[in-house]
Parts: sequence; C-alpha cells; structure tokens
Amino acid sequence: MSDATKDDLLQKPISRRDMLKLGAAGGVGLLLGAGGLTGVLAGTGMLKDSAKAADAQTAGDTVPFYGKHQAGIVTPAQDFICLGAFDVTTTDLGALRTLFQKWTEASAKLAQGQGVGDESGNPILPPVDTGEAMGLNAAGITITFGVGASLFDGRFGLGSKRPAALVDLPAFGGDELQPEWTGGDIAVQVCANDPQVAFHALRNLARIARGKAVLRWVQDGFQRTRTADPNGSTPRNLLGFKDGTNNPDVKKADVADDIVWATQADGANWMADGTYMIMRRIRMRIEVWDRTHLNEQEATFGRHRDSGAPLGEKDEFAPLDFAKQDDKGKLMIPMNSHVAVANMGGKVKIHRRGYSYSSGIDLKTGQLDAGLLFICFNRDPRRQFIPMQQALAAQDKLNEYIVHVGSAIFAVLPGAKAGGCIGETLF
Amino acid sequence: MSDATKDDLLQKPISRRDMLKLGAAGGVGLLLGAGGLTGVLAGTGMLKDSAKAADAQTAGDTVPFYGKHQAGIVTPAQDFICLGAFDVTTTDLGALRTLFQKWTEASAKLAQGQGVGDESGNPILPPVDTGEAMGLNAAGITITFGVGASLFDGRFGLGSKRPAALVDLPAFGGDELQPEWTGGDIAVQVCANDPQVAFHALRNLARIARGKAVLRWVQDGFQRTRTADPNGSTPRNLLGFKDGTNNPDVKKADVADDIVWATQADGANWMADGTYMIMRRIRMRIEVWDRTHLNEQEATFGRHRDSGAPLGEKDEFAPLDFAKQDDKGKLMIPMNSHVAVANMGGKVKIHRRGYSYSSGIDLKTGQLDAGLLFICFNRDPRRQFIPMQQALAAQDKLNEYIVHVGSAIFAVLPGAKAGGCIGETLF
Repeated sequence: MSDATKDDLLQKPISRRDMLKLGAAGGVGLLLGAGGLTGVLAGTGMLKDSAKAADAQTAGDTVPFYGKHQAGIVTPAQDFICLGAFDVTTTDLGALRTLFQKWTEASAKLAQGQGVGDESGNPILPPVDTGEAMGLNAAGITITFGVGASLFDGRFGLGSKRPAALVDLPAFGGDELQPEWTGGDIAVQVCANDPQVAFHALRNLARIARGKAVLRWVQDGFQRTRTADPNGSTPRNLLGFKDGTNNPDVKKADVADDIVWATQADGANWMADGTYMIMRRIRMRIEVWDRTHLNEQEATFGRHRDSGAPLGEKDEFAPLDFAKQDDKGKLMIPMNSHVAVANMGGKVKIHRRGYSYSSGIDLKTGQLDAGLLFICFNRDPRRQFIPMQQALAAQDKLNEYIVHVGSAIFAVLPGAKAGGCIGETLF
Repeated sequence: MSDATKDDLLQKPISRRDMLKLGAAGGVGLLLGAGGLTGVLAGTGMLKDSAKAADAQTAGDTVPFYGKHQAGIVTPAQDFICLGAFDVTTTDLGALRTLFQKWTEASAKLAQGQGVGDESGNPILPPVDTGEAMGLNAAGITITFGVGASLFDGRFGLGSKRPAALVDLPAFGGDELQPEWTGGDIAVQVCANDPQVAFHALRNLARIARGKAVLRWVQDGFQRTRTADPNGSTPRNLLGFKDGTNNPDVKKADVADDIVWATQADGANWMADGTYMIMRRIRMRIEVWDRTHLNEQEATFGRHRDSGAPLGEKDEFAPLDFAKQDDKGKLMIPMNSHVAVANMGGKVKIHRRGYSYSSGIDLKTGQLDAGLLFICFNRDPRRQFIPMQQALAAQDKLNEYIVHVGSAIFAVLPGAKAGGCIGETLF
C-alpha cells in the first residue's frame, strides 16, 4: 500500500507499514502505547463501525506494552506462541542493562505493529529490522521477559537479589528432563495471533542480543485459531480433551492479585507486580493414548471428552463434585483423575496459559513429538505450582500418557512505564 | 453448542459437530463434496448475507475433496501445512489398496469438517477420531496424496507402472541432504487455515495406517495468516522478501494444464490429471543473512525488499526486464540474482506452493533451524523442476544464504469421484 489515503485506511486493516506513515505524519505512534490502535483510529474517525473495532481488538490489534504489569500474562491467550530461553554470554552487568534497555525499546515498537527500526534501511548497512513482518498488522502481539535463577549465580553480583520464591524446581517423579529443553538465564515469551509475527519478534530480539546472549532453546506452540473457532470456546489439547475449563478468571483484578502478582510481602521488593513463570515441555504418548478406550480416557481426565463436563454431568462448566457417587456407590470422578488431583481441595490455584506443540517425528522412536507446552504463572511457586506438581507427579492417572522432557522457572519482571525499562527494578 | 437450532446457526460459524447433526438430520452431508458448505447453506437460506459467505469461503469453509484433480494443488494456499511422508511396512498390495480406500473415506470426511468416525464413540473402545478438532470448522482443509519412486521398487509388483517422469532427483551442487528429511514411499500433504485442524488430519491418517505404513518425516509450516494480513498480499519469506510475486496463475485452467497437470502423453496413463510434487527442506542461514547489507540482499533476490518490485522499479508486479541497465551501463537485475536465474528465459515454469518453517534451535550450532519448506507441482520434473534447480544450484547468488537439507519427489495421484478411491488408477 504505497499511496495510502484515508479512504484506503477505511477499507483495509492497518499494517505496520501504514503505522509508520501515520506516525510520521501526525505523531500518532506515540499514543499507541496507552490506548491501542483501535482507540486511536476510533478517535480520529478512521473506523467505520464498532464491529470492525471489536474484530481488530481480538485479532489484529495492538496490546499495550508498557504498564504496571507486563503484557502476555493475564492477556487472553493469543493463537500462537514463540517461547525462547537465552543464555547470557556477557559477564558485564552494564551490558546486560543495556540489552534490556534495547529489548524494551524494540518490544514497544513490535507491540505497536512496527519493525524494530527503519524498515527501508540504509542500503550499505544490514537492515535494522529483518523485514518478514512488513505489511502485517500487530496481530495482538505481547512480549514478556523473565529471568532464571542462574542469572543470580554470581556473574553479575546479583546473588543477594535472588527472590526466595525463585527456587530451583525439585525433581518430580517421572521427569525425563533433557538438558536442551531445560533452564535458561532469560525467558522471552512472544505470543501473537500470527506465527510469522511471533517468530519475527523473537528473531529480532535474538539479533539485538548478539554478543550478549544466545538462544538456548526455542519452542513454538499453537491453540485452535479464531479462524477455526470464531466463538473462542475452550481449546482442546492434543489428547482431544478441553483444557482450561476451570481456569481462574484472572481478568478480575482480585483474582489476579490472589494468584498471579507477586508483592513486596512475597520476598524480593524488586519483584512487586511481577510473577513467576514455569515452563514444562510435556510430551504426550499419543500413540499409546490412541489405543486407550474412551471410558479410560475420560476416567483419566475426570471429564467427558465430548462436552468437557465433569464425569456424570452434561455442562462443561458444571461444578466439580468429588463426593458424587454413581448408583453402585463408586465415585463419579476418580480420585486419581487429572482434574481431581490438580484440584488440590480447591486451595491451590495457578494461572495456566499453555499451548500445544508439534515438532515432527522423534527420530529415536518414529513417533510424533507432540504435546503440551505447559506454561503457568503464579505469585509463589513454593505454595502453588510445586505442591500441585508434586501431587500430580505422585498420583495423576494421566502420567501413563505423558512425560515431562523440559522444565524451567523464571521470575517474570514487573512492567515498565513508557520511558522506563523492563528490569529497571533489578539491574 | 449442544443444542444447535437454526437461529444459532445463523449467528455462529458451523463446526464439525454441527455438520454431523445437519448431516444426520437431513442428509445434507452428501451434498458437500460437490458444492461446499457455503453453497449448501445459501441454498437452504441459512446464511444471512454474502459477506459471511465470502468470509467462510476463504477461511473456515470446506474445499471439495473429490474431483478430477486432487485438492491442495491449485487451491489457493491456506495459512498452514502439515506435510508427512510415510514408509510402507506391509508388502501386500491388497493391504496397500485397502489403506488408500480407508484414507480416501477418512479424508472426504475431514474435508467436510467432520471427524473420521463417530465422535461420541463406544466407551469400551478407543475413539475412532482422536477428538482434538471437535468444535472446529473445516478451516479450508485439503489433503493431497502422492507416491514416491520407492513404491515401485518391486515390493508390490508395480515396477512396470513407474512413470518415466518420476525420476530419482539428481544430486544438485551444494545439497547437504539428511536422510531423516529425505524420501518416503507416500506423501500426505495437509493444508488448512488452522494448525490444529491440519495436525488432527495427519495424525488420524497415520493412525489409520497402523500396521501398514509409518511416518518417516513430518514438517509443519506457515504463511502469514489472514488475521495479520486480511488482504492476502504476497507472503514474505523468513529472509524478509516477498516470495511468489511472479507465480503463474494456476487458477486459469489453461495455465494449470500447461504447467501442472500430467496427461497420458506425459508417460504413465494412470497419472493423467495427476502431477509431480517436489519437496525441498531449505534451511536459511538466517544469522549470516542478517549481517548482510540491504544492497547485497536486494542484489541477491533481484528485487527491492520493501516493495517487492524488480530492482529499479517501483511496482511489485512490474515486468522483469533483464536487459535494463543503470546509468553506468550495469544491469539493474544481476544475472546471478535469484529472480534472474529462476526465470530460465521465461520458458520453464513450475507452480510453487511453499511455506516457511521454524523448528527451534539447531543443537549443533545454536542457530535457528528455520527456512523454507519448498513445495512445487509440475507436470514433468525432467523438463521443469530439475533444469531450474540445476541452474539455481550452479548460479544462484542466494546459495550463500541457504542450504538444502531435505528432498523428496512424489507422483501426486489423480483425483477421485465420490465413491471412488485415490490411487484407483494405479493399484
């Protein structure tokens, strides 16, 4: 769209190239961090109707990067994830600080649907932005930064700042962790409604890190897209079951405060308004599962496959009643079912935000290397994720069909205001 | 949507669950092979307006499975691909014939947005369908079958039927082929506008093949989605350049006849209305490319990165003029640029239908394992793909930044009529 007019803009969604032009023409770009694209366009009369605005909001629109908390945590899950862990190669704290400054500035641009630098570029230099997202809209992108326990190992003199809640995860029964899918000094979680937009962001952030940090592992993931499920019902995992029916509603501030956001009282002052992220790469033994009877599958999850309802119920969102018995006095929901064990008496909650992954064939077995890229956020893993995973590792019937092959824990940094820097409370 | 009414259907896109109900209620399912979902719903007054119909047609709708040619070849490229190659483990031609019969029936259901069997299932048997696409629409899915040269090696007595055009690809200069990404007895290409819908199809087809064929390799791929680029402009590859600007318009029957569809005259009678598919897994040396000046990048492709226009032009679709010189008498488009070498004097054309891939980190180098899942269709690789790739391997400046690590060639079978079977002309 090389000769964009306002009429064009009325007809067409806004690309990152258009945004650069709008920004250059009227300084509109600066407003986006606060209100998002839809707000700006509605304010300037550039959107025809609220339906288009709603569409943009859920799929192609921008999500503000700056804020009290980082985006991508209580943000409703986008369709795709590109999750990378970095190992830091510099031992200079100043260089690390500079890296986070550059990452913050780049991420704020990416969140607005822009490239990380002048897209036309200087012909006798490498382009600042790698270009594969030119012409694409922001696709709801969020970029979320966390730091691993290894960053506090003495290289940077940060040892005394390690939060008590950023524990080394204990060994869980059944773990078969592979080093190439485990750990990392820094996590960068990119989520978007388009995989090319997500890949572009992680790639450009890795490029900015050159000489200071290198990628340790990268895992892509997906959920059913809005294209295939415009109503946004509960996603199904690759075992065919709805996954996330009973998730706490972290859109409510008090729920998020209770489950997700760290406070000063939780330990390190610098982590207030941050959270803790756990990644588990959980491979599914798909071929074994596919040979299992439906009854057994449903007893494994504790829910009906078709409706997602608790066993014995019809409605997906029916309350879980772990005392309910069938006419022979047998518990409707087995005590070792996934839903029963994970429930933890209703007292322990985490905010899950996972994706499915499919990574081709495992050359050793010839079977599909596919499963769940489990991601959760919680304010204190010692009281939330760890006891829950210990219970699951010990009792969950689902363990017959899954194996945890990757693991990492990160302290997800507090958000930053425009002009500030992610990590400024730590470094 | 457990209590679907016609009113519901007016408001909501149609899922594979709804389709089962519609089919059961009025036998509508049988019509879908011919006209697609939109046609059926329009005919029954179940679509409110043509805008919704157009939307469905491009994203969530069905593409007919049965026809003179297989779908997924001249079908406009969907957003995602899940491409698998199988090794046949049975040596019984009858078993192979049965497999294609079952695959045909399953694929016809999948193409209609249904599961491969009764989704509710018999509780004391494994579910017939694995379930992860329940509630999702068809997402424009196509499933396309091909057979490799190795299927004609004598196991099945098919040696005399091997088409002359199904050659073993010659070694190309610079190839670094890895066995795990090369060859295969059978190819199954699944394309859809949702990755979970695509994965579900390949997985269920692999499950149906149990005891007869096993997956040899699987590669997922993506293009920019309709979400991020609702106008569907030319996709960019992961080197940031538009890829496909000059593709022949195979929507035109005469162009497709000229480039894509095999005829009896081309060799094997049984391949009439089929075509030949070549897969090349082309890894991009992304980190090297990202250090290269924009001028050099543009000289490598022969196009401007920003607009996609030929060097010296402004418009993406400006004709390629390989004689045009700058004011110093230098050719505007270098003779060793990708576009110049691939042009082959305008005499050799193929139908490309590739996707980008991103498969995490290469553990050996720590670099991104990402690039192009090159796929093309042509009526005779001896006159089309092979000479073009020989020229590219010898001269293309792009070779500094890419390496071919996987390769396969398949005879893509003719289409089948409803009631027929893919492969019926061969087996």
